[in-house]
Amino acid sequence: MSRKLRMGMIGGGIGSFIGDVHRKASAIDGMIDLVCGAFSSNAEKSIASGKALYLEADRCYGSYEEMIVKEKELPEDIRMDFVAIVTPNHMHFAPAKMALEYGFHVVCDKPLTLTLDESEALQKVVKNSGKLLALTHNYTGNAMVKQARAMVQNGDLGEIRKVQVQYLQGWLSTAVESTDNKQAAWRVDPKKSGIGGALGDIGTHAENLLEYITGLKITEIAADLGRFGKGRVLDDDGNLLLRLENGAKGTMSISQIALGEENNLAIKVYGEKGSLEWHQENPNELITRWIDQPKKIFTPNGNGLYQEALNVSRIPAGHPEGYLEAFATIYRNFALHIKAINNGDTIKKTDYPTVEDGIRGMKFIYAAVESDKNNSIWVKV
Amino acid sequence: MSRKLRMGMIGGGIGSFIGDVHRKASAIDGMIDLVCGAFSSNAEKSIASGKALYLEADRCYGSYEEMIVKEKELPEDIRMDFVAIVTPNHMHFAPAKMALEYGFHVVCDKPLTLTLDESEALQKVVKNSGKLLALTHNYTGNAMVKQARAMVQNGDLGEIRKVQVQYLQGWLSTAVESTDNKQAAWRVDPKKSGIGGALGDIGTHAENLLEYITGLKITEIAADLGRFGKGRVLDDDGNLLLRLENGAKGTMSISQIALGEENNLAIKVYGEKGSLEWHQENPNELITRWIDQPKKIFTPNGNGLYQEALNVSRIPAGHPEGYLEAFATIYRNFALHIKAINNGDTIKKTDYPTVEDGIRGMKFIYAAVESDKNNSIWVKV
Amino acid sequence: MSRKLRMGMIGGGIGSFIGDVHRKASAIDGMIDLVCGAFSSNAEKSIASGKALYLEADRCYGSYEEMIVKEKELPEDIRMDFVAIVTPNHMHFAPAKMALEYGFHVVCDKPLTLTLDESEALQKVVKNSGKLLALTHNYTGNAMVKQARAMVQNGDLGEIRKVQVQYLQGWLSTAVESTDNKQAAWRVDPKKSGIGGALGDIGTHAENLLEYITGLKITEIAADLGRFGKGRVLDDDGNLLLRLENGAKGTMSISQIALGEENNLAIKVYGEKGSLEWHQENPNELITRWIDQPKKIFTPNGNGLYQEALNVSRIPAGHPEGYLEAFATIYRNFALHIKAINNGDTIKKTDYPTVEDGIRGMKFIYAAVESDKNNSIWVKV
Amino acid sequence: MSRKLRMGMIGGGIGSFIGDVHRKASAIDGMIDLVCGAFSSNAEKSIASGKALYLEADRCYGSYEEMIVKEKELPEDIRMDFVAIVTPNHMHFAPAKMALEYGFHVVCDKPLTLTLDESEALQKVVKNSGKLLALTHNYTGNAMVKQARAMVQNGDLGEIRKVQVQYLQGWLSTAVESTDNKQAAWRVDPKKSGIGGALGDIGTHAENLLEYITGLKITEIAADLGRFGKGRVLDDDGNLLLRLENGAKGTMSISQIALGEENNLAIKVYGEKGSLEWHQENPNELITRWIDQPKKIFTPNGNGLYQEALNVSRIPAGHPEGYLEAFATIYRNFALHIKAINNGDTIKKTDYPTVEDGIRGMKFIYAAVESDKNNSIWVKV
Repeated sequence: MSRKLRMGMIGGGIGSFIGDVHRKASAIDGMIDLVCGAFSSNAEKSIASGKALYLEADRCYGSYEEMIVKEKELPEDIRMDFVAIVTPNHMHFAPAKMALEYGFHVVCDKPLTLTLDESEALQKVVKNSGKLLALTHNYTGNAMVKQARAMVQNGDLGEIRKVQVQYLQGWLSTAVESTDNKQAAWRVDPKKSGIGGALGDIGTHAENLLEYITGLKITEIAADLGRFGKGRVLDDDGNLLLRLENGAKGTMSISQIALGEENNLAIKVYGEKGSLEWHQENPNELITRWIDQPKKIFTPNGNGLYQEALNVSRIPAGHPEGYLEAFATIYRNFALHIKAINNGDTIKKTDYPTVEDGIRGMKFIYAAVESDKNNSIWVKV
Repeated sequence: MSRKLRMGMIGGGIGSFIGDVHRKASAIDGMIDLVCGAFSSNAEKSIASGKALYLEADRCYGSYEEMIVKEKELPEDIRMDFVAIVTPNHMHFAPAKMALEYGFHVVCDKPLTLTLDESEALQKVVKNSGKLLALTHNYTGNAMVKQARAMVQNGDLGEIRKVQVQYLQGWLSTAVESTDNKQAAWRVDPKKSGIGGALGDIGTHAENLLEYITGLKITEIAADLGRFGKGRVLDDDGNLLLRLENGAKGTMSISQIALGEENNLAIKVYGEKGSLEWHQENPNELITRWIDQPKKIFTPNGNGLYQEALNVSRIPAGHPEGYLEAFATIYRNFALHIKAINNGDTIKKTDYPTVEDGIRGMKFIYAAVESDKNNSIWVKV
Repeated sequence: MSRKLRMGMIGGGIGSFIGDVHRKASAIDGMIDLVCGAFSSNAEKSIASGKALYLEADRCYGSYEEMIVKEKELPEDIRMDFVAIVTPNHMHFAPAKMALEYGFHVVCDKPLTLTLDESEALQKVVKNSGKLLALTHNYTGNAMVKQARAMVQNGDLGEIRKVQVQYLQGWLSTAVESTDNKQAAWRVDPKKSGIGGALGDIGTHAENLLEYITGLKITEIAADLGRFGKGRVLDDDGNLLLRLENGAKGTMSISQIALGEENNLAIKVYGEKGSLEWHQENPNELITRWIDQPKKIFTPNGNGLYQEALNVSRIPAGHPEGYLEAFATIYRNFALHIKAINNGDTIKKTDYPTVEDGIRGMKFIYAAVESDKNNSIWVKV
Repeated sequence: MSRKLRMGMIGGGIGSFIGDVHRKASAIDGMIDLVCGAFSSNAEKSIASGKALYLEADRCYGSYEEMIVKEKELPEDIRMDFVAIVTPNHMHFAPAKMALEYGFHVVCDKPLTLTLDESEALQKVVKNSGKLLALTHNYTGNAMVKQARAMVQNGDLGEIRKVQVQYLQGWLSTAVESTDNKQAAWRVDPKKSGIGGALGDIGTHAENLLEYITGLKITEIAADLGRFGKGRVLDDDGNLLLRLENGAKGTMSISQIALGEENNLAIKVYGEKGSLEWHQENPNELITRWIDQPKKIFTPNGNGLYQEALNVSRIPAGHPEGYLEAFATIYRNFALHIKAINNGDTIKKTDYPTVEDGIRGMKFIYAAVESDKNNSIWVKV
């Protein structure tokens, strides 16, 4: 029988940024209900958040351990199907592991874990559990990113030669971590963020987007990281050279001190036959260039798209979709996979980032940090 | 006690465009649950749609009359709080009237009704019922539209002198109504659309957006309508001169045969001290011009915004919101109003379009048609 | 023998805007030398200007009459080939007539003359003289305008259905004519400007651009003019409905009180098969839309252009050309025509605006003023 | 006495790209006349070119040596004032040296010479000659580049932290050097280009623009060069990390195989208080971002500019200037300097690139090549 999937949330109390994003994104397509949560390590706060979210009182838990245990005890037609983990990085591994081991699927925010070791351990847990893990590299959920990937896969661009990717923000230009900005505080703290600052927070998005669109692995990087904010031990800026597995070369520029930039993730890919360019802040167009034709601009549900792009557009051309819709695409594809499994369908994995993407991201962080420590020598990813 | 509001839907069976938009938009902010529906005048189709939407079988109704009657009989803590009417124009009035008379609030798609008479009748029904009616002129739900309105209200632009508004689409460039395009078929049929074609479908959005941002009434229009599609009796194109109540002048251009245009609603407002420009297809920026300062571009949750704009942004600057989010703002503000009433709070109406906006829209259509019949003479709105 | 053409200038003393533009534009392509001038009705000023422009003292004249007479007396291999008239509108007719009658070709700034009568008289003078007259509707000299026109002519867009043209400036938003702004002073003075204000100054450009690109005549207009500046008797703003000879419809919006606009001339043309859009402030791209293909952006010397566009680009793709280069194209084509005549070549007229364009412009002004006086009734152009 | 300056040209026969650019650019402002030339090493071709350019026959020379000697012999009021050298790189040094030693000022295309040794030798020649040398890093002649530099100099951006500069072209994506493309042929030939391919041709522009705007020296670079075209020995692509003298970091990306890119030179500069962004293909806007204000867009002759930017705009705001006008600014400022010297005025050097800029460019090329040979180690510039 067809039914909505039931989600439990770990972290993301009222007032959090990313918890709210996960809630909205999972709601858009009408396939998922939030039914329970452990929204804070403080039980009182957790319950207050649950109440504000209209949850039933007995499903607002004081800790994620409690939630996982208690939900497991509920009848199958009531208990949650999966958890969404939206805590800071250092709180990803333990709840993900426990949830998987208790038989729940997992959606986890990025980067996957605090350390590479944890990620590799988690990969095994996923495998052993037979459950699904989706990593919210949400930008790959944009229709124009799907179109870009499909164009590369179909050979429209020919062999890729050059890439540029950047993810620029300016919100850490000043010492906001010294104010009561919780978002900033944990991100500059290596105990909560891991060895990468901007690298983990946004660099992994850039790395993931590049590998997703090109279908090529980054094999080597040379990194020069900046720590411009006074007293910061983690990078808040980075400039990287890239080499890809097919011989293509490129640059990556990331920053959280690029003053005035809001959320400027952008990518350019140059091939032997064509090129493409996409900007997250204006996500509803894909700019393409060609040897002997004028520049062409693709739009969601517009003319000339591949099916992969058409699949993710929810509304007619010219009706812009944004950040939440792209995020929702991850949830939708994840939900479709669970439903297929529940129905006993034998389908191939639908299209969303997984634990393998998470490990790529962690390796990217580690390689960049090592290169930077060694005056920007090339380091294998 | 705090709870989600319960929505019933009239029209909008699986596969419909605008029904799906209403469902997604009402879901985003987590304040509303779809609990029942009469999705089609065909009972079987209605039930199939309800099932596909995961509704309980006994709340998938065969007709809106059945739904309203049966829901009324349900206990207060179960029955729907309001209906969303997402049928073609000729099917707005009757269900809205009945729902209101049975004590349900109403969300109604635009234009308000088939005829101006119906609209004026509905206005009385609303008044007598003491219930709320929201009209989904969704574009006013954009953060940058709120900013634009606030800037005018605060006098930043000075006295308004000139306006330009356009709403251009190209999807009726060919005879799509002769294919199995249901969207097109009813829109070109005066029995279902009313006396306005493009006028009602998109012209009312343009009119509403202009009056919303400027706070000024259009007092006179001179219209030259086009019927370019072979055999069309309703306008599929229109060019209008505008005069506003304060002496400002302007143009409106609307079209559904502007080949290649997707959903190009755009407005420019020129005042004595400043000017503004907004494009729906790129909704996350508001362009402003000044006597002695460079052009300034505002963005949602970016620098320098009025509170009215900040209120509606759900995510940080640089994270684009789109069509669904703007639509959701109408639902959110409507839901907040219902909640306030339910709580016995004495608040002022929160900000969403109402039956009065609907009547303005109908008068606009009628004036445009009359002007066009008389070789574009000026007609009072 | 091949040689540079020799130009004499009437008006355009040092400090003038349009005189300097004509000098620079005529110099770019290396085909024309400025050899003499009557730069001011004040002989002293005229001579000072000529000196500052490095002219020989005996070819700096105190009046245009003197220049025409004296140049005529010079040996053929020294005397000027043509005059460029860059005075205010009321000073176009007399010098143009005299120059033609003395056997000189003429370049004249727009609008052609102060009155329609003068224009029609001048048309006869041109005809009788056998000499050439170029009118500097400079915007038609842009490569992307040539491409636009060629696309329409080749039927790429199919039958034209809808047009939008606008020419928006803001420099008369305040009473600059009360300051020592000479540009403003004569433009708001009907004795020097004629019966049109913005209509003549920029409206004629809009009208000419539209007819040039579409190859269609505007047959009727309905105009609502504004006089927003205190005490102004001439229009400083206008909103117009347009009907073209083939049944297409459209709008024109012009203004010199559109605060913050710099020189925003823009046009959109919608056909049955394709559409195009061009913005003067960003002249190096032509946006096109299609039934079943994505949006395509053409650029000067870029891919996919017609020969007509390639002919006017001076530098490789990506090297922007601007206002002066477009202006220079008028001069170049005019010079090529003179050279052909001088060489006894029998070529067809090369591509530049002529006295006929000037008469169209004057008729446009007159029709708009008449319509406006009669509360925007339709008036034939 | 005031007079036009007289220019002789070396290289740049009819059909050449950059020779024509120099001619047009030097003509725009009406301060310079082309009076003689040695347009080709083939005497016949040189003379044919001179004739086509309307030069007097006896001043069309068969070689640059002949031109320099013969012009020197002419009376002072007839002979050329300066030479413009527009040959391939390997033909810069000898004519520049000889011209200077014969007492002529020099305009030289970039990069300065074939080798760094030549550049340093030329620097001494310039010094000893007491004559001027202008290097045509033409992009610094844009009004918005002047504004950018002035904003940095005035501290508007605060301390600079991060830079991005790119210069992307696609015209060498295929083996055009195997066709009869002369532009391509010499550029991929180390005997004519020097040790840098794209590095010399466009990388030096990027380097110069960055140092010009920021006022900061690049102190170290780490380069990864590409040679994507089959059989190419010189770089046709490059990715570089940058460190500036004040501790700022950044990236440079250059390419001539970035398929579909036309002439995409662009720069972003991020400071502690503000940021700026400029794109050569859309040169008439400067995008700026701020801590607590919305994004501001500056335009030539628009609101809020520094005098340095106002100085170079030739036409009112909204009238776009382009590549040739920026190029012309170099010529204008160079001409003003010569005139000042000729008048015996003691002025400071006006603003144009000189031999020192040329040496910076050569050092940049050498450092990049050395870094690339050593697997992208950091190399001092």
